[in-house]
Amino acid sequence: MNRYYITLLFTAFVFSAVAQIDNSDTDAFFLKDIHTFALSQSKAYQWLDTLCTTAGPRLSGSQASYDGLVYAESVLKQLKTDKVFHVDCNVPRWHRGQHTLELAQAGVPIQVRSTMLGNSVGTSGNMVTGDIIEVFELDSLPSLSEELKDKIVFFNRPMNPSLTRTFHAYGRAVDQRVFGPSKSGKYGAKAVLVRSMASQVDTIPHTGVTVYEDGVENKIPGIAISTYDAEVLSEYLTHGSVQASISSTSTPQPDTTSYSIVAEIKGSEFPDEIILVGGHIDSWDIGQGAHDDGAGCVQSIQVIETLNALNYQPKRTIRCVLFINEENGLNGGKSYAEYSNGKGEFHLAAIESDAGGFTPRGFSCTADEEVFIEKLTSLKKFENLLEPYDLYLKKGGAGADINPLKSQKGLLIGLNPDSQRYFDYHHTAEDKIENVHPRELLLGGAAMTSLVYLIDQYGL
Amino acid sequence: MNRYYITLLFTAFVFSAVAQIDNSDTDAFFLKDIHTFALSQSKAYQWLDTLCTTAGPRLSGSQASYDGLVYAESVLKQLKTDKVFHVDCNVPRWHRGQHTLELAQAGVPIQVRSTMLGNSVGTSGNMVTGDIIEVFELDSLPSLSEELKDKIVFFNRPMNPSLTRTFHAYGRAVDQRVFGPSKSGKYGAKAVLVRSMASQVDTIPHTGVTVYEDGVENKIPGIAISTYDAEVLSEYLTHGSVQASISSTSTPQPDTTSYSIVAEIKGSEFPDEIILVGGHIDSWDIGQGAHDDGAGCVQSIQVIETLNALNYQPKRTIRCVLFINEENGLNGGKSYAEYSNGKGEFHLAAIESDAGGFTPRGFSCTADEEVFIEKLTSLKKFENLLEPYDLYLKKGGAGADINPLKSQKGLLIGLNPDSQRYFDYHHTAEDKIENVHPRELLLGGAAMTSLVYLIDQYGL
Repeated sequence: MNRYYITLLFTAFVFSAVAQIDNSDTDAFFLKDIHTFALSQSKAYQWLDTLCTTAGPRLSGSQASYDGLVYAESVLKQLKTDKVFHVDCNVPRWHRGQHTLELAQAGVPIQVRSTMLGNSVGTSGNMVTGDIIEVFELDSLPSLSEELKDKIVFFNRPMNPSLTRTFHAYGRAVDQRVFGPSKSGKYGAKAVLVRSMASQVDTIPHTGVTVYEDGVENKIPGIAISTYDAEVLSEYLTHGSVQASISSTSTPQPDTTSYSIVAEIKGSEFPDEIILVGGHIDSWDIGQGAHDDGAGCVQSIQVIETLNALNYQPKRTIRCVLFINEENGLNGGKSYAEYSNGKGEFHLAAIESDAGGFTPRGFSCTADEEVFIEKLTSLKKFENLLEPYDLYLKKGGAGADINPLKSQKGLLIGLNPDSQRYFDYHHTAEDKIENVHPRELLLGGAAMTSLVYLIDQYGL
Repeated sequence: MNRYYITLLFTAFVFSAVAQIDNSDTDAFFLKDIHTFALSQSKAYQWLDTLCTTAGPRLSGSQASYDGLVYAESVLKQLKTDKVFHVDCNVPRWHRGQHTLELAQAGVPIQVRSTMLGNSVGTSGNMVTGDIIEVFELDSLPSLSEELKDKIVFFNRPMNPSLTRTFHAYGRAVDQRVFGPSKSGKYGAKAVLVRSMASQVDTIPHTGVTVYEDGVENKIPGIAISTYDAEVLSEYLTHGSVQASISSTSTPQPDTTSYSIVAEIKGSEFPDEIILVGGHIDSWDIGQGAHDDGAGCVQSIQVIETLNALNYQPKRTIRCVLFINEENGLNGGKSYAEYSNGKGEFHLAAIESDAGGFTPRGFSCTADEEVFIEKLTSLKKFENLLEPYDLYLKKGGAGADINPLKSQKGLLIGLNPDSQRYFDYHHTAEDKIENVHPRELLLGGAAMTSLVYLIDQYGL
């Protein structure tokens, strides 16, 4: 029995167990109004444009990240809410600096397009040189132990193109980027090259976090090269050895303070049941963070904008949260959960948008094991009202920022946009406003607003 | 009761009536294999690239249309089929020529981006001048009767942006382009400008067919201007009159002969039950016809390619049909139906892809009234097997080329790709290979192959 069957059986179970809600005219018309407003009047795309082009790349702790926070707060304060406040936290900082990567075979240069991995150490101004060794699995490092010494380890396992959902392919390849430098350092390697996490063969290098595990003494630099260049390098290696020379001024820096932003509309009937919508305001430093995750931020603000515009007074408390530091620490999500737990709060549902501003396909959900079946079954009662918008409700991941809320035993929900183009842009210089389609973005915000409305009306 | 309710009730009916098929491992694994092959091995994107860049824009009767036919046939002949043959038909021809459009208010020029409507007459080398009158509905022409004489009629009703499905918005606006010149000519207008059929405000003019109704004596030219320029022109008109000067060498030309291509794999058990997949090989003349409808053609060929690659011998007869002349006459579709009816054939199902090479969302179906409920209900038994690929099955339009097959009382099915970006490119110079995403295209072909497989296995 493979995972398809598990999904199918699960779906069948839920179908048989759930009575769909009586879809009154009111609900269907309200969802229609939400979509009409989104596509004809919402300012979400303009907000994203401003966030991307005036604040720009918003790595945690950078001046641009504060500019982004200030701008987003100014937008939220133009809307009608009961309060807007900060949840403070420490965030790591990292300075990319400059790097050079020169490859050669028998003295003949091989040009590649590359970018430092986020949080990577540099070379302290030195030139690091070594022969390249190609590796496809972290698990193969122990058996190669002796061969790794003084080498440049090149991780070249592609994202599996044949998986229809690109996030699944990402999840099965990203260990090379996250742990490649840390684990290779243990065996005396001098640096790591990683094939970019991209769905296609192209010439764009993708950054993203690398993590040095506790106790690692030999921290070595990590550099991503484009998938096209990875293919070329691999071909060269079939003909003979390739030497790499690397220099980098990348430097992790001391933590600093930052904050997430929370805007709240107090519920009129059940104020203690919170429905959260959110995205993360920080981004990597080489693109505008348009899809990742400016899109999720403006869509979350769009929820408030739309409820305002339609004069909707929620029964439950609605919170729009713009998290800081998703990319390299998750301190925004963790500190928000600590804050919330400290107040004894209960998040009935939390919806995160952090998978790009593409046409929404549906929502995937998770929760504490104890309540999951009950909550998802309850959510399924909305299925017929979401059907005209072709939005599914499925089991699956929700979002990194809201995950720490799981212990409150509400439902954690992720917006699932179409994923085919996400890893063309993710963590690259191409993650910019020009690559976000206004209608696709706005439909994502409308989908979130629709689900917020239904949960607010009927609970879970 | 609005159309949402009708859909919901219909869905509910079908759900309650249908037993899902026993989803054996075989079926689920075969659908997985289809998708794996598509995303890792299919050549469909490369075929489209070649079709777009070597044949190029393929207006019926043009040399490029024959080049496209020859290339597509060469691809089909590389695959394993029982026969490849032509169905001949006459097609209209049209010569775009050159045009000029100059607008001015009080002698000050207003620059606009424009393109002649397909099949439009020109001005026989003359300069046609007149004041512009803005109109939003064809129905308002009779009441304006006297005011239209010697005017340039400017149709400026936008595609409604608030409709989530862009084809619905297109369907409610395109009458202006199709009948605007014909109906305005009756009242003595000199020419027509039409706001481009586009989902967004941008600077790209969209061509597309205009039709002169039988008996119209005063055939006048039709020109599309970009949506941005339409907004600007409308604003100018609030301040005073705007004059237009138009010249055009566009000329409809005598019919010529062309053909559609049919590739067939004979069924092993039920050879008289035909399952057709198809798209149209012709395109408008100002773009490469990548989405419209090179995509549908290569996806249809991909169905044959995939069945070959997976060594699948169909029980029923599978036909891949590349229709000619969808854009300005539908003679390919009509002549194919005549050919088929003449042979006493029965198309159990016909699946057309003519809505762009975007991520597939599902299929919409129609049929002769007498058999529709029975056929769609039968189709719904596949729903659980399509669910892992997020593909819906709904009531709706199928395709212009296959519509003439309705009298055979099989099921007519349209592939529904995501529609948000389609009218950014449709009938423009931007409908080119660079704007087709390989994975999105290939998933559409995989969806079609999956449905062909299921219908072949279980009938309807």
